Amino acid sequence: MEVLEEYLNFAIDIAKHAGKVMIKYFKQNNGASYKGDKTIVTLADTEINSYLIEKVKENYPLHSVDGEEEQFGKSDYVWVCDPVDGTAMYARHIPVAVFSLALVIKGESKVGVVFDPFTDSLYTAIQGKGAYKNGEKITVNDYELDDMKTVCHYDLWPEADYNISKVLQELENKTYIIGLGSIIRACMCVASGDFTFAIFPGTKHKNCDIAAVKVIVEEAGGTVTDLFGNEQRYDESINGAVVSNGKVHNEVTETVKKYLKDRK
Amino acid sequence: MEVLEEYLNFAIDIAKHAGKVMIKYFKQNNGASYKGDKTIVTLADTEINSYLIEKVKENYPLHSVDGEEEQFGKSDYVWVCDPVDGTAMYARHIPVAVFSLALVIKGESKVGVVFDPFTDSLYTAIQGKGAYKNGEKITVNDYELDDMKTVCHYDLWPEADYNISKVLQELENKTYIIGLGSIIRACMCVASGDFTFAIFPGTKHKNCDIAAVKVIVEEAGGTVTDLFGNEQRYDESINGAVVSNGKVHNEVTETVKKYLKDRK
Repeated sequence: MEVLEEYLNFAIDIAKHAGKVMIKYFKQNNGASYKGDKTIVTLADTEINSYLIEKVKENYPLHSVDGEEEQFGKSDYVWVCDPVDGTAMYARHIPVAVFSLALVIKGESKVGVVFDPFTDSLYTAIQGKGAYKNGEKITVNDYELDDMKTVCHYDLWPEADYNISKVLQELENKTYIIGLGSIIRACMCVASGDFTFAIFPGTKHKNCDIAAVKVIVEEAGGTVTDLFGNEQRYDESINGAVVSNGKVHNEVTETVKKYLKDRK
Repeated sequence: MEVLEEYLNFAIDIAKHAGKVMIKYFKQNNGASYKGDKTIVTLADTEINSYLIEKVKENYPLHSVDGEEEQFGKSDYVWVCDPVDGTAMYARHIPVAVFSLALVIKGESKVGVVFDPFTDSLYTAIQGKGAYKNGEKITVNDYELDDMKTVCHYDLWPEADYNISKVLQELENKTYIIGLGSIIRACMCVASGDFTFAIFPGTKHKNCDIAAVKVIVEEAGGTVTDLFGNEQRYDESINGAVVSNGKVHNEVTETVKKYLKDRK
């Protein structure tokens, strides 16, 4: 356990540095450009990813890095990172974007850190030790699905693995639905009780988006599975995700199963 | 025209004050509570609305105020205000919310101000005089609908006048769709070229959301109509809205007409 705490402190240092890089480019012309797959990559993204690899090589040379922009090594200990989640918003000057880093050991998320530099919110968790926001314990809410206090987040884009529009159409009578453009930021709202659940339709290599979320939301009392309610590894591509307060989890995954066929 | 400039300066003063109030409550417990209609109203909302009414009474006693929270008077000169657009996000500690104020004369938006205190972005326009962000001229983009650079914003909630899910389903193959939780913030992205269009399904009294958008986006070279492509007044309830870069406007309103029947 003490070792996990050391890893958490390492991750927090990286997160704080990443936050500074994000703010720096956000205030400047942030160099947004389009990749072949049409998502936007920013200078911040690549600078943070490289910094992480450099630091992991320096401190944990036997570990590997699975960054959204760049990877390094092959090991049971993988630092899974989304340098800037919400790049489409970030590049459009909307302050909804976060840094996310998890230590995944043999496929399981053990340590997670998410940092939102725009509201100075640092979310942290170690498996078995609870979830925290800026050092204060956080917990999911206890809303039911048809409680109108419920907020659902989703991501919808042409390259998604699954088309969840029909799922959303059924849910929209029960809940306020938003799509913030940063799934990880939304999931931190699930962890802190502000949102009730989030649906992530998945796309190749998107374990980077959910690895830290997995341990933070579950340590806050919530549930994180693939789209169909199954557990999955976080050191490889994932089969979408449902991230919830736990209470509504079954109802959401049952709705998904009604409309989508599990291709895994 | 000089008089319109005086009105703009008055609106900017109110906006700057509103921004301070928004930041003050955002950093504190912001007193989120649920109204009967299930939307969230915050202390900021009511404090800003009251301040506006006080200032209009003081400076323009013959004008009236149509605030989302509180109204005053009846005149051809109406200050149409949404004190905090994006309250659902604001109350959940997400920095996506703006102040919006327009001077509507005989139903027509003549002066508009939108202020985003989180990124310190002040959007202004006077009819016929161009649109500005922090004093620099802004213009809409020139993207086509199936250009994958396109971002569409929508709002989806159970109380909306029209259910636009089918419209979105058709559009989602052509564009990245997000729902930021603040239609006005999204429309400012249309004005500055960051988004291509936004669809607003409407609900009673929501002229407050579009009045300032109307003059700012059109002065930036875009087009703002009701959901079906028609002009409308902004001193009374509106029939939804399509807010675009102009280029994609017809294609969007034609898609709307395919799925929805104009009830006006």
